[in-house]
Amino acid sequence: MKRNVIVGQSGGPTSAINASLAGVYRTAKDRGAQNVYGMLHGVQGLLTESYIDLSDHIKTKLDAELLKRTPAAFLGSCRFKLPEIHEDMEVYKKIFGILDKLDIEAFIYIGGNDSMDTIKKLSDYAIITGHPCKFVGCPKTIDNDLAMTDHTPGFGSAAKYIGTSMKEIIRDGFCLDYEHGLVTIVEVMGRDAGWLTGSSALSVGEDCAGPDMIYLPEVPFDLDKFKKKVGRLLKEKTSIVVAVSEGIKAKDGTYICEFGNSIDFVDAFGHKQLSGTASYLASFIAGEFGCKTRSIELSTLQRSASHLASRVDILEATQVGGAAVMAADEGDSGKMVVLERISDDPYQCGTSVKDVHKIANNEKLVPRDWVNKEGDYVTQEFIDYVTPLIQGDVSPIMVDGIPRHLLTPKELSHR
Amino acid sequence: MKRNVIVGQSGGPTSAINASLAGVYRTAKDRGAQNVYGMLHGVQGLLTESYIDLSDHIKTKLDAELLKRTPAAFLGSCRFKLPEIHEDMEVYKKIFGILDKLDIEAFIYIGGNDSMDTIKKLSDYAIITGHPCKFVGCPKTIDNDLAMTDHTPGFGSAAKYIGTSMKEIIRDGFCLDYEHGLVTIVEVMGRDAGWLTGSSALSVGEDCAGPDMIYLPEVPFDLDKFKKKVGRLLKEKTSIVVAVSEGIKAKDGTYICEFGNSIDFVDAFGHKQLSGTASYLASFIAGEFGCKTRSIELSTLQRSASHLASRVDILEATQVGGAAVMAADEGDSGKMVVLERISDDPYQCGTSVKDVHKIANNEKLVPRDWVNKEGDYVTQEFIDYVTPLIQGDVSPIMVDGIPRHLLTPKELSHR
Repeated sequence: MKRNVIVGQSGGPTSAINASLAGVYRTAKDRGAQNVYGMLHGVQGLLTESYIDLSDHIKTKLDAELLKRTPAAFLGSCRFKLPEIHEDMEVYKKIFGILDKLDIEAFIYIGGNDSMDTIKKLSDYAIITGHPCKFVGCPKTIDNDLAMTDHTPGFGSAAKYIGTSMKEIIRDGFCLDYEHGLVTIVEVMGRDAGWLTGSSALSVGEDCAGPDMIYLPEVPFDLDKFKKKVGRLLKEKTSIVVAVSEGIKAKDGTYICEFGNSIDFVDAFGHKQLSGTASYLASFIAGEFGCKTRSIELSTLQRSASHLASRVDILEATQVGGAAVMAADEGDSGKMVVLERISDDPYQCGTSVKDVHKIANNEKLVPRDWVNKEGDYVTQEFIDYVTPLIQGDVSPIMVDGIPRHLLTPKELSHR
Repeated sequence: MKRNVIVGQSGGPTSAINASLAGVYRTAKDRGAQNVYGMLHGVQGLLTESYIDLSDHIKTKLDAELLKRTPAAFLGSCRFKLPEIHEDMEVYKKIFGILDKLDIEAFIYIGGNDSMDTIKKLSDYAIITGHPCKFVGCPKTIDNDLAMTDHTPGFGSAAKYIGTSMKEIIRDGFCLDYEHGLVTIVEVMGRDAGWLTGSSALSVGEDCAGPDMIYLPEVPFDLDKFKKKVGRLLKEKTSIVVAVSEGIKAKDGTYICEFGNSIDFVDAFGHKQLSGTASYLASFIAGEFGCKTRSIELSTLQRSASHLASRVDILEATQVGGAAVMAADEGDSGKMVVLERISDDPYQCGTSVKDVHKIANNEKLVPRDWVNKEGDYVTQEFIDYVTPLIQGDVSPIMVDGIPRHLLTPKELSHR
């Protein structure tokens, strides 16, 4: 590389997204790039020429290590969909004008489905106009729903957090003693894909039986079967823990979380209160059996708990960042870096690049045969697939008892 | 010691409660106790003669280390209030009969306020009847609301989890970019005492400004002042994070979480839906400002996340367990072990014993002058008090990428 590189982050944050950024920066510098710029808030920020020079932020190897341990998009994220090229050429002209001004030879975008759509459109525009800039995508999403790649960076750390938290929740429930039993419903992210919810099965081990049921959005949820199973289990044990995806739906396509809001309940300020899937199911079960129930949402913590990141995940995230730069340097454009699993045991995984046209706007769901017949648990195949991705730890750098992060450009500007 | 010791766990679980159990076991054995029994589900289990011999479970030093890393009461917990002695002598006769049968010389109870009430009543009964058994309490509660002790084991680990999670949540919010801003309300445990909610301030550091506001239950919550402050902040920054205790109340004593349920909202099964404090405030703010809001409950994770335990907390929990046995062996009864801070920097803390009559059913709240004038943040004194308690880590023993725990008697019996 002889000129400059620009990198952006987009979509929902993860624990590993900044490891990819660190990988992009290091490889670009190693390969001779002059400046490595970071768009603030992705393409949206680029359009207002909001960017930084990453050298001002990653000054030492310690900075790079802190960056890898910092959750959520360091550069800031956005959810910005580029118009179709034929609909609005002006946006593209503006972006390419800025890229020319900054003398950019490679544009790397770290993100999920929507971000790959951005790479697709920009690389298409470059082809149409004969522009030499290369556009390469770097996969990122806790949801693990990107096509063509074995898995996505960010997923492994989220899965490790979910497996660990699930185990801690199961133990908490198990030590309590309620007269009519305790049913805990744990709600996990993933509206359409059940990779994260299924990862609650990682809590299964010699010292833990795991959750009692696991419901993924890929399989229709049968409230009556669920009720019967809970009733049966309540006769056998004092504490039942159920993992549900936020996106489980009844056979007719209604989200279970909508059930709780069938009555027009508006708060004092005129707003409809939407209760979650877990809280609906918890109150449903309490009503049916008179037992104690709890609902727990793992919420934003599952995507930002970098203190429990998976080492495999962080290393792979760094690796795909570097591979994206390398691909662009070698002339690839309109591509996304993918992870290709070479073997399960010992786990080995390499990178390759795939045409982003085949990836953007596609969704990879959990195969039906990785869920049991009853539709209430994942199979051993699922567990074998995820287990290698949560191995190893990235020890947080602790200061005053709390993990240290790298100060972001946005925070710096507030000081 | 020449005869036997029995130990029980009671009340809400914590990450450190089993470290105290490990301390009781080791010290009792070191001092010559024959058998160390564990009541299953506290006094309630003892009444049905449910107990184990701890030697069957803690066979190696590795078992002891696993026990210290296992969250939630290993022996099972209970919430059982003994009747007043004059009300029902039979219960006492039954308990002392069982203690005699087991040849118990020391009875150690690990728990919070209610558990100390049990120690008080049993030791009173022993005095009245001239029974030689010694009864000593071992403090435990994440709420840190026990009187006479500088702090309680379990609190430090919960505070470390809250400070860390808060920082991760703040970073997550900060990288997002919503047109009208984002307000995140994080709900923390502590109905009456704000020690845990205040600990969200531990996220403050060179790399994090901390939450924008912190509301403890000790100070009346003014919804109008809150609204005005949020409105002001929304003009300055894109993401606002607020920590609230689940127990904050308006001036007239109404819990804020009751506001959301002022309309008689019942679900399809006739149950009143109680929404939480955070979810009420989030929908209130969304209604007032049209901004994006999120509510996050740290839920049971804050008391069971042993993967992020504080080393100081785990060591002190072990230490008070040992000190309780030592006190009983030296003839103390009707006492609770307390932690006495000798110095802040370097942090030093010793143990001593106090009359349980002065502790049981008392609550230690956050002093008003550890909250700022506006009632929306803790002071530096508060932070200086908590910071030493979250220092150091207890590395989880990882198996297949997930922390290993010690298999509990209850789980063993299910195999």
